[in-house]
Amino acid sequence: MTGDSVSTSSLTTLIMPPTLRWEGDPWTGSLILLDQTRLPGEVATCRIDTVTDLVEAIRSLRVRGAPAIGVSAGYGVVLGMRAASDPNDLSSVHAAMTDAVERLAVSRPTAVNLVWALRRVRERVESLVVHQTRAQTQTILARDLIQQAWLEAVAIHQDDMAMCLAIGRHGADWIDARFGNPRPPCPRLEIITHCNAGALATSDHGTALAVVYETHRRGRDLAVLADETRPLLQGARLTAWELSRRGIPVTVIGDGMAAALMSRGRGRLVIVGADRIAANGDVANKIGTYALAIVARRHGLPFVVAAPSSTFDLTLTDGSSIPIEQRDPAELIWMGGKRIVPEGVAVENPAFDVTPAELIDAIVTERGVIEPVKAATVQALIA
Amino acid sequence: MTGDSVSTSSLTTLIMPPTLRWEGDPWTGSLILLDQTRLPGEVATCRIDTVTDLVEAIRSLRVRGAPAIGVSAGYGVVLGMRAASDPNDLSSVHAAMTDAVERLAVSRPTAVNLVWALRRVRERVESLVVHQTRAQTQTILARDLIQQAWLEAVAIHQDDMAMCLAIGRHGADWIDARFGNPRPPCPRLEIITHCNAGALATSDHGTALAVVYETHRRGRDLAVLADETRPLLQGARLTAWELSRRGIPVTVIGDGMAAALMSRGRGRLVIVGADRIAANGDVANKIGTYALAIVARRHGLPFVVAAPSSTFDLTLTDGSSIPIEQRDPAELIWMGGKRIVPEGVAVENPAFDVTPAELIDAIVTERGVIEPVKAATVQALIA
Repeated sequence: MTGDSVSTSSLTTLIMPPTLRWEGDPWTGSLILLDQTRLPGEVATCRIDTVTDLVEAIRSLRVRGAPAIGVSAGYGVVLGMRAASDPNDLSSVHAAMTDAVERLAVSRPTAVNLVWALRRVRERVESLVVHQTRAQTQTILARDLIQQAWLEAVAIHQDDMAMCLAIGRHGADWIDARFGNPRPPCPRLEIITHCNAGALATSDHGTALAVVYETHRRGRDLAVLADETRPLLQGARLTAWELSRRGIPVTVIGDGMAAALMSRGRGRLVIVGADRIAANGDVANKIGTYALAIVARRHGLPFVVAAPSSTFDLTLTDGSSIPIEQRDPAELIWMGGKRIVPEGVAVENPAFDVTPAELIDAIVTERGVIEPVKAATVQALIA
Repeated sequence: MTGDSVSTSSLTTLIMPPTLRWEGDPWTGSLILLDQTRLPGEVATCRIDTVTDLVEAIRSLRVRGAPAIGVSAGYGVVLGMRAASDPNDLSSVHAAMTDAVERLAVSRPTAVNLVWALRRVRERVESLVVHQTRAQTQTILARDLIQQAWLEAVAIHQDDMAMCLAIGRHGADWIDARFGNPRPPCPRLEIITHCNAGALATSDHGTALAVVYETHRRGRDLAVLADETRPLLQGARLTAWELSRRGIPVTVIGDGMAAALMSRGRGRLVIVGADRIAANGDVANKIGTYALAIVARRHGLPFVVAAPSSTFDLTLTDGSSIPIEQRDPAELIWMGGKRIVPEGVAVENPAFDVTPAELIDAIVTERGVIEPVKAATVQALIA
């Protein structure tokens, strides 16, 4: 993995670089990730050429956000197939694909889009292998198999961009219906969000922030209150960065502040993303989301989740069986090289929590809006 | 202001140094503060000899916690009187006292114990000055006036220690009544707290943590979940430090995690301190407290406030008129010398929030427990 870096100060007038992109052809090209661990101080990319590098990049959150992880993983399978012991042998490349899928699938446990993307690539590759086996002729070369995997990864990537735009439209329609005419003297719509469900969490535009971008594009006066989102500060570092680059007014607050601001009349709507949604509409998202949903309900603010249909896991009846990633306690213990939590003190660091469907007013997907949120309405739109 | 520092690693077997102490006589002695900005990495003290130094120490949170600020301010008046233009002239010393009281009163706006302590010292000094004026004889020397102020500061300091112990007893009684027999096989009592309302926030023992210490001393199996408390991390740095030094099991969590842990059955009780309490029982405390109270209510956990009677401000009908300190946005923007929030992005940093009385199950004071919390019960115990 190699990288290039530019200080942000010289880049403030440039638009955002893409969260991820493929550079080159399927057989020799690379996956280029915007290294999100270095934002906002540095706009740096890293070049990914192996599954090992991609697993490291996913685990260390160089690339993060359920949809972006899924898209990256699609390309990751291509990188794995190229590393087959015999890249010209069909069964060797197939075995390498299986290995890559298995390694990538466990890189992070909560986001289900990862598994969904890996399945798409694997199924495309395997349907060809099965076809070839049945035909009993060498019509498909190993090289073609790699190309087919890459084409599926590109399709996932393109679908993701289209998905984001569709979520933006459905979400903005929902806001227009709920809050009325967006033209002045319509009061400013202050939207609270948590973590980053923006362009940086997807191929582009985002999920929750796609709704913000589309609502803004339609001319509504709006502003965002962004929870800083401990411990890794995706709200302060990433959401504030991408919103300010796109000209949306944004204010960063501590995670414990939203309730106090709501009690003084601040915030009119909460929108967040999701990492996995169960069949009944329970939503796993960044730790702190559940607390935000509770305080929003107390203050009568609508709480909206924006996520693609690939985030739903209909095999789970409810959120209680969603696996919750426990991350390294060091994320809370250390800060800027300084020890904050004294030695010998325990730390818990769950990365996600589960917000029950009853606290969620609507789930915006690329297929439309689920409202009210319950098993029947989820089933009707997603199954 | 000068200081001494010792790395904590060599001190782990020592008990905690005092939060604050006076060293020497009233006329030449100094106020010695444990510098809480340097914990847990360094156990360092700073020597305070002027009002200017004390105002800086209070503003920068070298000394913090409503009761500890009050005790420090009492000694601060003595330092101010010694700096009179003519330290041997009664009216000059009196003028210096007035000046010190005014400067200290505005050092932090929310904690009312500060104003309460300053009033105690001022009233003692002024009653002597009035007495002297009436007697029309030079019976009291400027030097005596300084001593009288110092004696009142010492009385405030001693009252504070007694107050903490009394709060601990009343709170532990409340817990025993609520949770029954503390002897095994009584299940472990997991207590959630926010910020630091411990020995470090008072002369010793604390308010919320005095209840923890006394409950532990009575033999109940307990553990503490400490919110790290953004932005200045008093929970991670201070609460974890003092609890672990006193042998209480403590786990640090992010501020957004408590709700998620409660939903999985963790935590049975929340106890926090207070910076100002209105006549109806509304409580101003560290930002994030209100959100914690809301999520505790959702999960049916009792929410208890522990604070001395000097924290009540009966001139305020309810919490809406409690002044809320807005602190420097830099506390959220920077972390360990690194910029987290991008340039050009706004930040809000209120230091406190207000929890309405209806979310508070009980307020434990040195005089007893207010329960239920409402104007009549507050009035009955405090007025």
